[in-house]
Amino acid sequence: MVQTESKTQLDKLNEALDSGEFRQIRFTLNHTLRPTEVARLIEKSPPKERQILWNLVSQELEPEVLQHLADDIQADILSRMNSEEVLALTESLDSDDMVDLLQQLPNRVMKETLRIMDKQNRRRVEQLLSYPEDTAGGLMNTDTTTIRPDISVETTLRYIRRHDEIPEMTDSLIVVSRKDSYIGLLPLTKLLVSDPAITIREIMVTDIDPINASMPDDQVAILFEEHDLVSAPVVDDDGKLLGRITIDDVVDVIREDADHSLMSMAGLDEDEDTFAPVMKTTRRRAVWLGINLLTAFIASAVIGLFEDTIEKVVALAVLMPIVASMGGIAGSQTLTLVIRGQALGHVEKSNAGWLLNREMVVGALNGILWAVVIAVVATIWFQDYNIGIIIALAIVINLVAGAIAGTLLPISLKAMGIDPALAGSVLLTTITDVVGFFAFLGLATIFYA
Amino acid sequence: MVQTESKTQLDKLNEALDSGEFRQIRFTLNHTLRPTEVARLIEKSPPKERQILWNLVSQELEPEVLQHLADDIQADILSRMNSEEVLALTESLDSDDMVDLLQQLPNRVMKETLRIMDKQNRRRVEQLLSYPEDTAGGLMNTDTTTIRPDISVETTLRYIRRHDEIPEMTDSLIVVSRKDSYIGLLPLTKLLVSDPAITIREIMVTDIDPINASMPDDQVAILFEEHDLVSAPVVDDDGKLLGRITIDDVVDVIREDADHSLMSMAGLDEDEDTFAPVMKTTRRRAVWLGINLLTAFIASAVIGLFEDTIEKVVALAVLMPIVASMGGIAGSQTLTLVIRGQALGHVEKSNAGWLLNREMVVGALNGILWAVVIAVVATIWFQDYNIGIIIALAIVINLVAGAIAGTLLPISLKAMGIDPALAGSVLLTTITDVVGFFAFLGLATIFYA
Repeated sequence: MVQTESKTQLDKLNEALDSGEFRQIRFTLNHTLRPTEVARLIEKSPPKERQILWNLVSQELEPEVLQHLADDIQADILSRMNSEEVLALTESLDSDDMVDLLQQLPNRVMKETLRIMDKQNRRRVEQLLSYPEDTAGGLMNTDTTTIRPDISVETTLRYIRRHDEIPEMTDSLIVVSRKDSYIGLLPLTKLLVSDPAITIREIMVTDIDPINASMPDDQVAILFEEHDLVSAPVVDDDGKLLGRITIDDVVDVIREDADHSLMSMAGLDEDEDTFAPVMKTTRRRAVWLGINLLTAFIASAVIGLFEDTIEKVVALAVLMPIVASMGGIAGSQTLTLVIRGQALGHVEKSNAGWLLNREMVVGALNGILWAVVIAVVATIWFQDYNIGIIIALAIVINLVAGAIAGTLLPISLKAMGIDPALAGSVLLTTITDVVGFFAFLGLATIFYA
Repeated sequence: MVQTESKTQLDKLNEALDSGEFRQIRFTLNHTLRPTEVARLIEKSPPKERQILWNLVSQELEPEVLQHLADDIQADILSRMNSEEVLALTESLDSDDMVDLLQQLPNRVMKETLRIMDKQNRRRVEQLLSYPEDTAGGLMNTDTTTIRPDISVETTLRYIRRHDEIPEMTDSLIVVSRKDSYIGLLPLTKLLVSDPAITIREIMVTDIDPINASMPDDQVAILFEEHDLVSAPVVDDDGKLLGRITIDDVVDVIREDADHSLMSMAGLDEDEDTFAPVMKTTRRRAVWLGINLLTAFIASAVIGLFEDTIEKVVALAVLMPIVASMGGIAGSQTLTLVIRGQALGHVEKSNAGWLLNREMVVGALNGILWAVVIAVVATIWFQDYNIGIIIALAIVINLVAGAIAGTLLPISLKAMGIDPALAGSVLLTTITDVVGFFAFLGLATIFYA
């Protein structure tokens, strides 16, 4: 299916690129594939091929292809253009898509581009730019189709037919007052089955609240999911209609939010370009490795406190990674569960206590279970039941510590406005390493003193 | 907004539960909140409260609430019902939602429920049950609104008006032949702006291929995202219309797929219930801890090979976790990037070579950078430049090993049909631990021999 098809497409393109048959590639890009498919091909090509492919895309298709590329790649392509080129490329787009692209521009080029825009467009774009990217205002589009409540279904149908087309993803007409205040929605499905003589006021839907432009985008996503919406009206604080949000943009929010936790936990950005060039990748990763190195040094310092004990009983050095590793694994299970629960809006103050309690009990139970196994193996391995007792105790302590840290870290980080997915995993490992080494080597120092 | 509101709701409910004011809760559940909001409240309550809340939901609302609950919780509630109760509860639902619920039933109860269903319903449900849950057939609904190509727009509008209502999420009528073969789509937005005298054939859209019932659901999601679809027709191998898929069900697929990688990497299931009871949670986590314990023992065994060297130079025990940890972190960055790339359909054979190469270079560069830092710190700390040289070499080796393992593991696991997100992280840590300890302690054994 799709997978196999595009596999061959990429293969074919690579062959064509190797042999320099650009005419054939140009034809495929501009006449065989859809703009979204071209965007996907560009995304999965390494930087050099990417540049060649982009240059082969015809001018008419450029806007459509560009808007479907990942943010990073858009920024890269736009960075090589001046304001006239940017304007020529973006002016055919919907205002919300245009704004998304403009936001990838360096500040100077964006200002210049706005300056050379015609007045009406500039006003619209500046208004959209005034909303943060991650709010309803930043998501919305201004292509609403509005009607008044006091006209009849028949008049509405005639009014609609005068349009050449209705914007894509229009599932409802928006009912507004003379002053453009939001009143209600008229689903097309309802318009089509209603008596022509009846007025819009009698059939419009009013039980869906319009979205305020300042609502954060993750809450917009929850609203769309809960109410199975295709589009929703956006209003300002006074209830005046500003635009509408469509499900395709909400799907992007959902995918990015879900990717965010996964990528952040490895210190990566959710917009991370899979095929970014070497130096860009090296620089970004270096920071994360540096932060983790700090925590590794802290763990080493803890071990350093017990050098004398290790010198006496080398078996401790052999077994100590087990204690740290088991605590880290158990802790990150809890951490991941809580972070996912936060993203779904499940975790809050009133149930955090229950969660912490459950995690501690689970940590203790699994700690005891595996402590017994590890103790038996360690005792047999080193012919020393002391070491079995020491490691068993340390495992239980560290699994409970992992459970506590895994629950409380994301909750307190979020309360402090720090991203739990980004900071959580580093802090968790620091805690389980320190607690693990300290408990194991500390107990050993007492036992073997 | 939503967040704050539902926070107070959960708080209020908890207070009411504590004081036993069930009448007030019953009123809130059945008259103030929407079914989706009730479902979310139940999901974020611990098991005991959950049972109480469910019992307070009125009979009419039960079907709507149940279908919006997570799979795990659905199964739990359904497991306490007999087939008559299940049937009474589910028969008001759309056939696809009904099938989703039936799939949570134990086999025996499901068969029994099918047996007591009326004939027409059973046929429809059995047909839907015949498609695997994770295919287009498993996602589809049978509530299509179809028309013939040779009638006029006017006749179509009159025909539609005879309906009492059109199913939700209907953005297009489906154009079919006399034999129910799929021909094309007629978007409602197009129907509304077209000349009444024109025939459907002249204005229908035919450039969107119908989806085969056997297409995997992640590919359906990609299609919906690429073409910004709201609904899409599903056909069998002969092109006969079977039903349609709507964006609300696709959004669920997207969210679950995205959650899958995050949760699997911690050995959790993407359906994992945040508030599952203690014993269920303990059992599920125990398995993952056991698997990780095995890999920890392997790492310990490697350290065990070098006991003599460690006895001579205890500083090695202090520093060795740094080598393992840095390799593990670098490796999981690569692993996460590749797994995300696979989920987005970016990584395939033809670009895997470039990716491996890039990762190795990045690993080597970051390895050299941090090796220098670590070497300086280690040399000063232990007043021994040998240990600085040894750890620097080991760090570079392990970061490159992490890069290779992080790239090749998910690619080969996927080729073998094993889930890279689930198996990848365990295998990766095993490799970076073994390589890290072996390189560091092995080099030390040579240097200090």
